[in-house]
Amino acid sequence: MNNSLKVFEELESNVRSYCRSFPTKFTKAKGHKLWDVNQKEYLDFFSGAGALNYGHNDPNMKEKLIEYITDDGITHSLDMASTTKEKFLTTFNETILKPRNLDYKVMFPGPTGTNTVESALKLARKVTGRTEVVSFTNGFHGMTIGSLSVTGNAMKRKGAGIPLQNAVTMPFDNYMDHEFDTIDYLEHYLNDSGSGVEIPAAVILETVQGEGGLNTARFEWLKKLENLCERWGIFLIIDDVQAGVGRTGTFFSFEPAQIKPDIVCMSKSLSGYGLPFAITLIKPEHDKWLPGEHNGTFRGNNMAFVTATEALNYWKDPSFEKNVQENAKKITHFLNGMISKYPDMKGLRKGRGIMQGISVSKEGFSEKVAALAFEKGLIMETAGANDEVFKLFPPINIDEKALEEGFEIIEAAVQEVVEEKELVTS
Amino acid sequence: MNNSLKVFEELESNVRSYCRSFPTKFTKAKGHKLWDVNQKEYLDFFSGAGALNYGHNDPNMKEKLIEYITDDGITHSLDMASTTKEKFLTTFNETILKPRNLDYKVMFPGPTGTNTVESALKLARKVTGRTEVVSFTNGFHGMTIGSLSVTGNAMKRKGAGIPLQNAVTMPFDNYMDHEFDTIDYLEHYLNDSGSGVEIPAAVILETVQGEGGLNTARFEWLKKLENLCERWGIFLIIDDVQAGVGRTGTFFSFEPAQIKPDIVCMSKSLSGYGLPFAITLIKPEHDKWLPGEHNGTFRGNNMAFVTATEALNYWKDPSFEKNVQENAKKITHFLNGMISKYPDMKGLRKGRGIMQGISVSKEGFSEKVAALAFEKGLIMETAGANDEVFKLFPPINIDEKALEEGFEIIEAAVQEVVEEKELVTS
Amino acid sequence: MNNSLKVFEELESNVRSYCRSFPTKFTKAKGHKLWDVNQKEYLDFFSGAGALNYGHNDPNMKEKLIEYITDDGITHSLDMASTTKEKFLTTFNETILKPRNLDYKVMFPGPTGTNTVESALKLARKVTGRTEVVSFTNGFHGMTIGSLSVTGNAMKRKGAGIPLQNAVTMPFDNYMDHEFDTIDYLEHYLNDSGSGVEIPAAVILETVQGEGGLNTARFEWLKKLENLCERWGIFLIIDDVQAGVGRTGTFFSFEPAQIKPDIVCMSKSLSGYGLPFAITLIKPEHDKWLPGEHNGTFRGNNMAFVTATEALNYWKDPSFEKNVQENAKKITHFLNGMISKYPDMKGLRKGRGIMQGISVSKEGFSEKVAALAFEKGLIMETAGANDEVFKLFPPINIDEKALEEGFEIIEAAVQEVVEEKELVTS
Amino acid sequence: MNNSLKVFEELESNVRSYCRSFPTKFTKAKGHKLWDVNQKEYLDFFSGAGALNYGHNDPNMKEKLIEYITDDGITHSLDMASTTKEKFLTTFNETILKPRNLDYKVMFPGPTGTNTVESALKLARKVTGRTEVVSFTNGFHGMTIGSLSVTGNAMKRKGAGIPLQNAVTMPFDNYMDHEFDTIDYLEHYLNDSGSGVEIPAAVILETVQGEGGLNTARFEWLKKLENLCERWGIFLIIDDVQAGVGRTGTFFSFEPAQIKPDIVCMSKSLSGYGLPFAITLIKPEHDKWLPGEHNGTFRGNNMAFVTATEALNYWKDPSFEKNVQENAKKITHFLNGMISKYPDMKGLRKGRGIMQGISVSKEGFSEKVAALAFEKGLIMETAGANDEVFKLFPPINIDEKALEEGFEIIEAAVQEVVEEKELVTS
Repeated sequence: MNNSLKVFEELESNVRSYCRSFPTKFTKAKGHKLWDVNQKEYLDFFSGAGALNYGHNDPNMKEKLIEYITDDGITHSLDMASTTKEKFLTTFNETILKPRNLDYKVMFPGPTGTNTVESALKLARKVTGRTEVVSFTNGFHGMTIGSLSVTGNAMKRKGAGIPLQNAVTMPFDNYMDHEFDTIDYLEHYLNDSGSGVEIPAAVILETVQGEGGLNTARFEWLKKLENLCERWGIFLIIDDVQAGVGRTGTFFSFEPAQIKPDIVCMSKSLSGYGLPFAITLIKPEHDKWLPGEHNGTFRGNNMAFVTATEALNYWKDPSFEKNVQENAKKITHFLNGMISKYPDMKGLRKGRGIMQGISVSKEGFSEKVAALAFEKGLIMETAGANDEVFKLFPPINIDEKALEEGFEIIEAAVQEVVEEKELVTS
Repeated sequence: MNNSLKVFEELESNVRSYCRSFPTKFTKAKGHKLWDVNQKEYLDFFSGAGALNYGHNDPNMKEKLIEYITDDGITHSLDMASTTKEKFLTTFNETILKPRNLDYKVMFPGPTGTNTVESALKLARKVTGRTEVVSFTNGFHGMTIGSLSVTGNAMKRKGAGIPLQNAVTMPFDNYMDHEFDTIDYLEHYLNDSGSGVEIPAAVILETVQGEGGLNTARFEWLKKLENLCERWGIFLIIDDVQAGVGRTGTFFSFEPAQIKPDIVCMSKSLSGYGLPFAITLIKPEHDKWLPGEHNGTFRGNNMAFVTATEALNYWKDPSFEKNVQENAKKITHFLNGMISKYPDMKGLRKGRGIMQGISVSKEGFSEKVAALAFEKGLIMETAGANDEVFKLFPPINIDEKALEEGFEIIEAAVQEVVEEKELVTS
Repeated sequence: MNNSLKVFEELESNVRSYCRSFPTKFTKAKGHKLWDVNQKEYLDFFSGAGALNYGHNDPNMKEKLIEYITDDGITHSLDMASTTKEKFLTTFNETILKPRNLDYKVMFPGPTGTNTVESALKLARKVTGRTEVVSFTNGFHGMTIGSLSVTGNAMKRKGAGIPLQNAVTMPFDNYMDHEFDTIDYLEHYLNDSGSGVEIPAAVILETVQGEGGLNTARFEWLKKLENLCERWGIFLIIDDVQAGVGRTGTFFSFEPAQIKPDIVCMSKSLSGYGLPFAITLIKPEHDKWLPGEHNGTFRGNNMAFVTATEALNYWKDPSFEKNVQENAKKITHFLNGMISKYPDMKGLRKGRGIMQGISVSKEGFSEKVAALAFEKGLIMETAGANDEVFKLFPPINIDEKALEEGFEIIEAAVQEVVEEKELVTS
Repeated sequence: MNNSLKVFEELESNVRSYCRSFPTKFTKAKGHKLWDVNQKEYLDFFSGAGALNYGHNDPNMKEKLIEYITDDGITHSLDMASTTKEKFLTTFNETILKPRNLDYKVMFPGPTGTNTVESALKLARKVTGRTEVVSFTNGFHGMTIGSLSVTGNAMKRKGAGIPLQNAVTMPFDNYMDHEFDTIDYLEHYLNDSGSGVEIPAAVILETVQGEGGLNTARFEWLKKLENLCERWGIFLIIDDVQAGVGRTGTFFSFEPAQIKPDIVCMSKSLSGYGLPFAITLIKPEHDKWLPGEHNGTFRGNNMAFVTATEALNYWKDPSFEKNVQENAKKITHFLNGMISKYPDMKGLRKGRGIMQGISVSKEGFSEKVAALAFEKGLIMETAGANDEVFKLFPPINIDEKALEEGFEIIEAAVQEVVEEKELVTS
């Protein structure tokens, strides 16, 4: 069958991007597999940039979804009350929040990551009466002006066409070196009334920076940041859009740090099935919104309520989470092995959980690895300001066999790039 | 069955809004009908604020959607190429653009109205190298910071918590009175290098202001604005998120004005089925995006591609559009009749197409009408800065019988409010 | 003697401007006269752009100044208390404020017009807690970022290199035509919570726009604006930097409108002798500054206190003001005569008091008149966004003979331009 | 004679500040001495916050000034050419620039420090086409919105009433500790395209932070910063308003660092006599101003040209500079001695040249020292975000005897505070 991308070249905007890295036309998908129009099969180590943590078209969710559509369940309800929304709220509270001893109000800010981030920034500013927000180097929070102002990437910032305001970038954990304590540095600025940095409304961060290069905040760093925020009355916003929903081995990425953010932003894998969906979790005492003060047409996507509710069922069985963590260990083991086995690439393991990769400073290396992997039937993304990280993002519940298959392809790709010698410094 | 909203009160944020005006729990929907948990039936003259122009759960789209899901068609594809996306692109081009002699590149900016607006503003600024954008009084473009900066509503602007920048509000058509030509006024500012208003990157507007009170731009005003934009090298951006997809009687709301905007923003009813979906149409010469310069996780919502493609089929048959226009005439006739019959309400007909309503300046009148209509089984919204307009937004393809039923309920509600005399000035 | 401008061309920045229009080197000045290095005498109808309302080197002030310097009076005192400052404060209060039934606290914000404007904007924002300021088309308030944001001139705004924020430009009196009531228009925006214009902290304006083309606000317009400001709790800031100190015939330009602004900005002719000096007058109830919250090195220019105090003595004698008004009448008469006599120039009289000129729409006409006048020994400036106004700005206390001499030169220049026919439309 | 401050309390704004620390009325001044209305004599270790480096009312300048005024030299000339301005330009070039091998165009931006800073920021943005400016912690550059945005002090920033934009605060030299290289840190941000900090138009800094606590940049740090700026095409702006004109021992404070800033801001002591005056020095290749693109009424303050020209004569004799440096050594010696002798105050010597002081972290200590010194007849200021530094700012050419007298008073004040024990930690 015709695999030409001519229609896209002619009719779609130049802004299209992934279709350039993965130049084929996809048709079907199931679990960790994708098929293109020529029935070529691909292993998916990309997972919709973290939006498909349960793999494609999960059978349980699929069943519920078809049933719901067949029965003419209400599809689009804005923020009117619906039975599916009620069920999602109850299940989320019972299955996720209560067992983790968390108490949050749920806001439906519109169905995308940038919607939840924008709502979080607005609420923090409104409640504190302050205007500035501290973000961190290499953070990524979205493409609308509010979210973009707290995003580090220079190319994407430039796309705004206006100066981005009301944000201050501070160094993420380990930004300079291990000696330099970036929380102390931030607090130094706050303590110094001559520093030029005002007490912010909020700090916003990812615990593992998905787009920014899999930079990982240590748990003690997060705990220290929470402590700082509490003392200064600053909102701690965790953007768990990419790192959440099990990607790091726990439902929320921040659980092992034992922190309780003031606001949590969730989207991507929340619906479980790849449907647009986002929520903003707000500590009850901060829920000072006026009715309708923030809204959005697709904040009542009931199909997403249905699949999201079904997805939460996985979390009722503790073995699910344990299995994810086992997968994480295998990935860690594999990546450590690669770094030892191919010392010429001078690789550095980045990330944690099912959100890991290898950083290679030689320009072009990681992109070449991803390109070769694609040829060999595996889809994988790069990350980092210079695309220096190749990033393993399989479904979190991938089975062992598929994981091993993926490892083999990746190793073959790495080996090939290393052997070509062009992209390794001798 | 339990119709309590307790779960929402306890677990959902205070920002929830429509569940306060329509205090029941909905479960099913079909065409112009909604049912709540107690099987109470409602006529839908609201249509998801314009996101359900074809009614709920259209059978043709439903069939295609179930088929697609059953076959494990790819659900979430970011901006990778997929066969469903290709089909959407081709169909959109063949069915909509070409017959209207329009030539646009299609951008998938993320699946909501505010995503397409933000992408339009960014592109206009990037291409022109200018920073300011002219918006119009009572325009509504979205809740993220970029879109909010061009939105008029004071309460929603205040929710930003920061001053909104890089936007200049100009008077919409007929803002002061019929004598005052607001395009001449705008051009006076541009011509006067001492006016303090810089040549903007773009003007952005709705041809009929859906949230702002159904204010309607005359076709000659739109044509004059397009002419001004051409002479000054200013991007003309039509936000057709609410007024598009047939709501005013033609696919694009601006067709009768015979203008060709530089950028068109579409969302809401585009997917046909109420699924999150948005596109940004860009004149080919303006498509200066770098790959990935704007992105978003849910820009490849394939279920929406499927239903949107199916929805476009309706437009192949000219009788579809004609029927919509017939419905519009009936609504106009009904509203004119109401205004004559109830002179005490001092009503003013607003809007055009299936996007009409009556403005009553007495505070509370229109809200009371909507509340009574809900009790009588009809869902209807108010619009305008002071909720002064009650707004008839049935599906555009509603059948005559249902339309008449709706008219009866609305008239009964109006009659009741008028007879109570509290909300009419004697 | 050498009249070369080589030193300036070599050593001074390209930003220099008036030395291009008046290409000679000045050495001495007295009253309404200037002399250049070749002893050529010039009639001064420019008065330092309004900074020399009493003419150059007034003998009374000169005497006091020399005495003060000779006695080693303190020159520079920041905002420490000094006896000269005390005397200025007392005299200003007794001679100017009390007789006009005005009650203001005096702030010394730094010695220039832009200092006083910036202090006014800061205070209005601080006290009201609002961020936006309404300015008017063709207003001119200064070159620092705060003042520039409320200044209309496009070339000067562009010099900022950043988008100018937190300001909204509204139409000045008679901006479109006499039918269009621009106060009603402004209030329409404020009343309409969907207008996109927030309730501002302040409006700032000149009663006669010195740089913007001598556009004049009618007294009833000013009164109506004051009334609007009172009802909305908006600060009324009159920038009387150029129009104040007698330039329009009364000490404050706003006296005949019988308004009491919340804040008045004064500078230019306040010191009387051309020395840098500025004050900000603040209604006592608005004086919410913290000590040192605004400061500046030269806010205690004692030489200016000395000459300013002496200058105020003129105002003790009512005949001084009357004489100024007589001069104003002569100028009006002269300009009206010119317009009648030279109908081809299609002149329009602008301004009021000793702040008048003729606007000629033909590009280049007014500049040519000013250039010829200079050749003939008279210094005169143009104003307006396109330099379309030639502007008569003699000392306000100029004697009749000198005034007549000036008129003759100006007429000669006009006649010459008209006769050349190049710059008049036939 | 009456020394009451009642007039100031009644008529002057609450913003007045120094008259609260030095509560008396001054009348006369000469060299390093001030007298109040009761003929009480004060030693001036404050020098108008650095505006009186040559002491009060220098006899040479006084003579020239009286002569100029007596002869009716032109006082106020905007930016028309005048003989005095020509002489200033020539003398400045011959006496200051050429001997230091510096090549700058001179801009007259208005007569105050904040005028020159604003002009520098505007030009840097205009020429580079970038919007952001890097400033440093505890920098102080002025009170108008542009300058305030690059100023660190939180109280003063808050006075703006709006968020301050287009500036990024970076750590000054030694901000954290001696190990932390703040230039490397800055460059790390620039190198990292994901850092969120855009390549700025300029960096702006004082080599010694006059208001910010006498923090001193090491010469190698300045050199490294210049090198960074060159490599990245960033304007290096030195704000020498307070540290310039000999205050640190050389005419420009940056001479010993052997750097050549792109722009230098000068004011305060430039006129020599305490008259308002400022210039902006611009490397010729950056002088891209349009005529009149920045202006100001008092940019032609000819009295200041006269005294400034005379003041420059001091710099023709190398012994002048040497003597200043001798004074600096004496101050260093005195301060070191104080720190040793009074270990309980845990003092830290700050600053360099005639711009030194002692930082005492115990809150209130330094303010108490200054207050006692005033009682004992010496005027001295505190600096730093918490007023933690008492600051010795005598005239740079003060004679030895007066310097010793000042030392004695200061020591007496310190001793008294130390002995009271309240403000020293035991």
